[in-house]
Formats: sequence, C-alpha cells, structure tokens
Amino acid sequence: MAAMNRRIVLASRPHGEPKPEDFRLEEVPVPTPGPGEILLRTQWLSLDPYMRGRMSAAKSYAAPVEIGQPITAETVGEVVASNNPAFKVGELWTAFAGWQEYFVTDGKGSRRVDPDAAPPSTALGVLGMPGMTAYTGLLNIGEPKAGETVVVAAATGPVGSLVGQIARLKGARAVGVAGGPDKCRYLTEELGFDAAIDHRAPDFADALARACPKGIDVYFENVGGAVFDAVLPLLNDFARLPVCGLVSSYNATEVPPGPDRQPALMRMVLTKRLRIQGFIVWDFASQAEEFRREVGTWVKEGRVRYREDVVEGLEKAPEAFIGLLKGRNFGKLVVRVAG
Amino acid sequence: MAAMNRRIVLASRPHGEPKPEDFRLEEVPVPTPGPGEILLRTQWLSLDPYMRGRMSAAKSYAAPVEIGQPITAETVGEVVASNNPAFKVGELWTAFAGWQEYFVTDGKGSRRVDPDAAPPSTALGVLGMPGMTAYTGLLNIGEPKAGETVVVAAATGPVGSLVGQIARLKGARAVGVAGGPDKCRYLTEELGFDAAIDHRAPDFADALARACPKGIDVYFENVGGAVFDAVLPLLNDFARLPVCGLVSSYNATEVPPGPDRQPALMRMVLTKRLRIQGFIVWDFASQAEEFRREVGTWVKEGRVRYREDVVEGLEKAPEAFIGLLKGRNFGKLVVRVAG
Repeated sequence: MAAMNRRIVLASRPHGEPKPEDFRLEEVPVPTPGPGEILLRTQWLSLDPYMRGRMSAAKSYAAPVEIGQPITAETVGEVVASNNPAFKVGELWTAFAGWQEYFVTDGKGSRRVDPDAAPPSTALGVLGMPGMTAYTGLLNIGEPKAGETVVVAAATGPVGSLVGQIARLKGARAVGVAGGPDKCRYLTEELGFDAAIDHRAPDFADALARACPKGIDVYFENVGGAVFDAVLPLLNDFARLPVCGLVSSYNATEVPPGPDRQPALMRMVLTKRLRIQGFIVWDFASQAEEFRREVGTWVKEGRVRYREDVVEGLEKAPEAFIGLLKGRNFGKLVVRVAG
Repeated sequence: MAAMNRRIVLASRPHGEPKPEDFRLEEVPVPTPGPGEILLRTQWLSLDPYMRGRMSAAKSYAAPVEIGQPITAETVGEVVASNNPAFKVGELWTAFAGWQEYFVTDGKGSRRVDPDAAPPSTALGVLGMPGMTAYTGLLNIGEPKAGETVVVAAATGPVGSLVGQIARLKGARAVGVAGGPDKCRYLTEELGFDAAIDHRAPDFADALARACPKGIDVYFENVGGAVFDAVLPLLNDFARLPVCGLVSSYNATEVPPGPDRQPALMRMVLTKRLRIQGFIVWDFASQAEEFRREVGTWVKEGRVRYREDVVEGLEKAPEAFIGLLKGRNFGKLVVRVAG
C-alpha cells in the first residue's frame, strides 16, 4: 500500500470555464479506517457535468465543494483494508470518494460491483448514475409512446445514448444531437438512432426540423442553449421535457442580453400544454433496483450498447473535465486511477 | 320571438388592449333550425380572458374568431324552437353560442342546466368551465397536499377563488393575490383564504414572501407577469405550476426587453425540480362528471362559495370584457342577455 494519497482539490472557484489552475494535485497521508470502516483504493473515477455546479458557491440541490477539498465524484474502488465484515478485502464497491486515490468510508450508500457481471467502469456509466438518470427521467417524465419522436442532445454521452436507445426500445423514433460527423455516424450506425444532427453545422436548426417531420414529443433536456432554442418551435402539443442538465450554460458568467424570452416560453407552455419538469436521479432512488435489472438485461442481450472514453491517470482529471464541458469526450468519460 | 338577432362581432383585431371600436353590434335575422336542430335564446353569456386570444390571428389551441363573426363564448340559453326530441322548448342548455341573442345548434357538446339545482349562471362559472379549470388543473397537476402552500392570482375570479377553496378543502394553506383591499378582504373574510395579498401594493413581493413563510408548493398560474416574478424565488423544491392562463400578457404588443430570463427559469426548473405544465380544461374532459358532482356538492353544502359580477345587456359585453382584462370585475363576469 502506498504511504501517500494523491488527490485533486479545488484550488479556486472557476470563473466561467474552469482553468487548470483552479485545481491542485496534492499528496496527503493515506487515511486509516476506524471501527466499522473500510479503506477503498480508487480504480475508476467518474467525470460528469454536474461537478461544474459543485465548484460554484451558488445554492443548488447539493452543497458546493469547499476550497481545498477533493472534487466530488463517484468511484469504483477496491477494498484494501476492512474493519467491517460486510466488506471483504479485494471486493469492488462504489463510493463517493472524490478525485483521489484512497478513501475511508463506512460503506453507507455504496453498492458492490461484480466484475464478472459487467466491466466495473460501467457502474459509473450505463449501469450507474448516468444510466439511471436516462432511465428514470425518460420513463417517469418523458413517457415516450410508440410512434412518438424523442430528441436528446449530448447523445453520445452516457445519458443521451441511453435515452435514445430506450426510446427506440419503447417504439419511439430517436433523434440525437451531437458535435461533429463522427459522433453522428456512431449514433445512427452503432446505436440505431433514427437520425443524428450535428449541432455545429450552420444549418443545425433546419436539419433538426427535417429530422423531426412529425414534430417533437419528448425533448430530454441536458444541454440547453442553442439546442433548446431549435427544439422549442418543433414541440408538439403535450410534449414532455424532462430537464436533467443545462451543460451549455454551466460556464456562463453573465445574464444573457434581451429580449426577455421567458414570457414567450410560458406562453408556449400554455398554448402547447407542455410539461417541463426538472429532476435529479436521486429523486427516483426507489427505482434503482428495477433500473439495474432492466438495463443490465438490455446490456447483456446487446439491446443497449455503450461507449467509454477512458483517461489514464488521476492527474489527467482536470484537463479531461475541462474538455467534457466542451464536448471533447466521446462516450462516458472515466478516469482509470488504478487497477 | 323577435324577428331579429342582435350580435356582437369582431370588427377588427385588437392591437394591444381591445377598444370599443374593435367590436360591432349588428342585427341579423334570427336563424331557423334545420332537421335535428334547435334554436336557443341566450339568457347568460360568459366573459372570460381566453377570448382575448381568439381575437388574435396567432396560432393557439383554438382557431381565431374571424372578422365579422360573433366573438366565441359559452352561454346558457332557453330552447325556443326544437326539431330534436332530446331538447324540449323551455329547457335551458349550455352552448357555444357566442356574443349573440339567438343560436342554432344540433346540441352536440351542450349540457342541460337544471334551474332548480343551482342558479343557471353558475353553469358558466363555479359549476362550468372556469370551475372545472380550477378543479382539474389543481388536482391533476398542482396536487396540493395537507400543510403545503398554494398561491393563486386573480383569486376573486371564478378560477382563482375555487383553486384557493379546494386547496383548503385538501388541507393546504391558500394564499390569494388580488387587486385592491376590497377583493383581499373578501378572500380572507368570505372565502376563508389564509392570506390575501394586494398586487397593487408597492411592497407586493415582500408581502407575498411574508404570507408564505414556508415557501410555495403550488403556484396556479393564470396571470403571469409581476406575480410570477414574485412567486419564482419563493418556490420550494418539487413545486408544481399548473399554467392555465397568462392574462397579464394577453394585451402585450412587444417582446419585453432584456436581460433574457429564460435560461434562469430553466436553471430554476432544474435545481428546484419544478414541474411547469400547461393545460386547458378540455384536456381533462373525461373528469367533467366527477367535477360537477363533487363541486356541486361542495356548493350545496356551503363549503365552496362563489361570487358573480353581472352585467345587464348584450350591448355591455365589449366594455365589460375590456374591463375584465384590467381586473375591473369582482367575481365571475357574466352578461344577462335575457330571462
């Protein structure tokens, strides 16, 4: 066991786009588990857009990361020391260890990861929080019906890719929005999306309209911004908009200039009888087992596919995270820390 | 039977606030019912904010009124001639006769009004479309729970007054917003609202916050504008916002200046996990019988009270409607046309 624990802490709160100097790699002694506790050595570290919110002091659904503390993150780690008979050395468990190599926990809220059932990193992606975000938001709020059109952005990411694939399993038409021709090709050729639109193309809004000839019944909102603007006029009456993220605005530093489009949005809510509903995955915590059983089966049967973008080494986490907010990753972004 | 039918037609599409000259009173021959049809003589005519939308050419959930045609309105009329055995001369029936004295219909969509069960005008108010709007929107989308806080504007109107009273019947705290001290007094002293706030008061937003010390769980949106702005920061996590009207903006002629608050609204939807959902009463058409049975019982038992603002004479409809959009009515605005 290494004597020191490498970790990445928040050096300063980012103003706008995070910069490398907002993060600091440091070494501290490996902590020692107390009675009933275990020591986890991080193997896989998940990088997700929500972490940008935790780096700000603004009020949200979770407390911000304190300056000098490791950035929040879910991990898969190996038990390297255990004072708790429920956790055996050598087992893999999820935890919210944060951006660091070692973590002491009493294991509450952790779940066992079986490396024989699926690659352990999937516990952070298609079979973890992002997958459950897609599953619960789409099925509880989006409620796609056969023949309807479902649109999702960041569609090659772990949330978007599952939203589209579940939409298709429910008989709906899946239209993905992604950045660049490679990602778009992947959506239609590998994941079976009915159409994929490049949001970087100059005729993006027109292309989206052409890909949705019968309008949009479900828009799974995870980006906001220009995609939302292009979606709005295409929404059908009674369209549902589960809102799980607005990544395009996470680095925003200013209130956008006018005109004020809020009243027009509310007018559209009324005349089209839209349902716009925010959620986070933990709102549907009671559906976790059902999610893992059903999506786990789909993955095993090859009915759901996933893609990971693996970054090697904890020290690469800041750069990878900065790229994530710009859409540079291609698939679920995970950091291999060890193992 | 009069030989002529007086009616008020749309003379021109209002730009902004409707003006008397946008309406024209004219006389045309009383129409003759064909096979299976009946002739109704209007007794009561309902004036409602949604009619402003029908006077515009803009796309909405219903087709606009054509220039030269009577303004849309629901009515209670007496059968004065009948070629249909299901409708007997002397009976009262609802219809969408519009702003006129006589109307021929096959009776589809009409319902019989029993003058012994309740005053016939209530079929246009507490026991009609406005009442059902309050009942279905609040119970299906607002879902108030005991101990929660429900806020509604235009609270002395037929929708708002029922929203608040049903909220209280469900054990919630009802806070009404209305224009002026008389209306506010009526809400707390006559209808039993827990608090009433005058939106004309200079400290309106602060007063609303003081009246909602535990935040707002349900905001029944029927006005928009400054009330919505004051409500937003008070919304609790998981608040529900049924959106049935935005009367404060119906006369708007320009897009409001910046900043653009639409992204901030979506951010709040996400962080507070709001549910914002538009509806019109016909979306819940299947609940009409349940509504009339339950609210009818509440009215009979005195658990729900209502107030009407009666205008005498068809020719007064334009002036009364213009006043409605300014909040000049006090209670459900109906025009007594005959009877």
